[in-house]
Amino acid sequence: MSLISVGTMAFDAIETPFGKTEKIIGGSATYVAYAAANFVKPVQQISIVGYDFPKEEMEELRKRGVHLDGVEIVSNKKSFFWKGRYHEDMNNRDTLITDLNVLADFDPRVPDSYQGAEFLMLGNLMPKLQLNVIQELKKRPKLIVMDTMNFWMETAMAELSIVLKYVDMLLVNDAEARQLTGQFSLVKAAKSIMTMGPKYLIIKKGEHGALLFHDDEVFYAPALPLEDVFDPTGAGDTFAGGFMGHLAKTGDISFENMKRGIIVGSAMASFCVEKFGPTRLKEITKEDINTRIQQFKDLVSFDIELA
Amino acid sequence: MSLISVGTMAFDAIETPFGKTEKIIGGSATYVAYAAANFVKPVQQISIVGYDFPKEEMEELRKRGVHLDGVEIVSNKKSFFWKGRYHEDMNNRDTLITDLNVLADFDPRVPDSYQGAEFLMLGNLMPKLQLNVIQELKKRPKLIVMDTMNFWMETAMAELSIVLKYVDMLLVNDAEARQLTGQFSLVKAAKSIMTMGPKYLIIKKGEHGALLFHDDEVFYAPALPLEDVFDPTGAGDTFAGGFMGHLAKTGDISFENMKRGIIVGSAMASFCVEKFGPTRLKEITKEDINTRIQQFKDLVSFDIELA
Repeated sequence: MSLISVGTMAFDAIETPFGKTEKIIGGSATYVAYAAANFVKPVQQISIVGYDFPKEEMEELRKRGVHLDGVEIVSNKKSFFWKGRYHEDMNNRDTLITDLNVLADFDPRVPDSYQGAEFLMLGNLMPKLQLNVIQELKKRPKLIVMDTMNFWMETAMAELSIVLKYVDMLLVNDAEARQLTGQFSLVKAAKSIMTMGPKYLIIKKGEHGALLFHDDEVFYAPALPLEDVFDPTGAGDTFAGGFMGHLAKTGDISFENMKRGIIVGSAMASFCVEKFGPTRLKEITKEDINTRIQQFKDLVSFDIELA
Repeated sequence: MSLISVGTMAFDAIETPFGKTEKIIGGSATYVAYAAANFVKPVQQISIVGYDFPKEEMEELRKRGVHLDGVEIVSNKKSFFWKGRYHEDMNNRDTLITDLNVLADFDPRVPDSYQGAEFLMLGNLMPKLQLNVIQELKKRPKLIVMDTMNFWMETAMAELSIVLKYVDMLLVNDAEARQLTGQFSLVKAAKSIMTMGPKYLIIKKGEHGALLFHDDEVFYAPALPLEDVFDPTGAGDTFAGGFMGHLAKTGDISFENMKRGIIVGSAMASFCVEKFGPTRLKEITKEDINTRIQQFKDLVSFDIELA
């Protein structure tokens, strides 16, 4: 089944306690595509880039089964650029530079060739743009998942509330879930979010794993304890890509299969943080992925008889 | 098999966002005993209390199979008293009052009737006292587990280093593991701690669960997502009591069985935080415990076929 992924394709410059990079490839939709393409083809990308986005990167994505008909190339502007710095606690980061560039004009359109897609991943974008994409689809996808961030809660809450009513699942981190609901308890936050529209909720907790909520069900996926988180940039998007890739591959949106999707997403995210940018995602093989998923199984497996 | 538990029996006064208490029963060894006694008898308590510690509490413990021969009662001093306040983020607390009282004179002795115990839980105490207990034992227990805290790392690191060489397992929280090793990465901290003496390490992460390390093996146990953590006081000791209780009940110190012990400990801790002090631990039945353990199984269970 096919997956539409909407989001940024961009440049990042990153500083972590382990080193720093000049401009490298980044963007939420880039990470989603590199992760999801391991599981499903095509990944149908909707994004916008400037004249400076490397043709080789587009070619690399194309080779992996990523369709780029929905990626607008603006010939007289630069691509979106973000520069940030992480500290020892990788859960927080400082934004040093945000150059919107082409992103200021982003008006995502769904190409005819993408119509009929069963899965839609709305990366973190202005809520109005996320809504536009949903409304351009002639047939409602089987599953619509959206990401968002604190910035939109502060500046576009009215629009965000509307988009929430159209999606099946919200995917946010713990701080965002708390901010969106005013609830510190994640269980209470989850219950509150599930009255806002989404029937499913994933709360990402970084090194502490992820929680999946639906009705009264909850699943807790661990994160792999790593010696070093070299660069967390894109880990959340990579998680989303692995999750959606698995669901789109199997076409199964049961709670049981979403659990599997979360493990696949967690495995992909654990690769992402090993090197700067999407570097590691481009290197790994199917076998690497399977080995990593097995590590996740071993990490949480226990067998206990109730007396 | 029998379990010796060394630690405080005391009074606490607690403020949380949900309410406050006057003096109620507390102390690390109290929590360990109430948790462990569900699984193993006898729990052989070593502690010190003042004239003000309620006889009814002693009787309640005795009824549950807790031996008190090792609990010194000082007739002219008060019991140890701690007053603290938790904020919304229950992982941090402010100490408002610490009255050592009898604890200033604590010189733990192992009664003859306790000799031969297979399991020893050393609650958080001055390292010298922990060492004294180990050295009083005529036969080395099958498993010695110790707790400690940042205060001893700052004021008695030399003695703490010595005790570490005598124990099989250290049980600390994430901040303590980081402070003890100067490593932010918990995986690196774990490797470092396992060169200091303990062959096993449990890192408690509060609402984010717990990690068990041994050689190159690692197990990640979730914490149950709760609507409210009403009062976290004693949760770590309750976890230790459940863990040790399960190991002592089964007599099995394999890594596989330690995993089960961690699930049992996590289940017990999840009860502890539901009410002030050890209140909830006194109410629960075997059936409640089994239901809770089943919730933990469901929380993390997934089945994934590798393609």
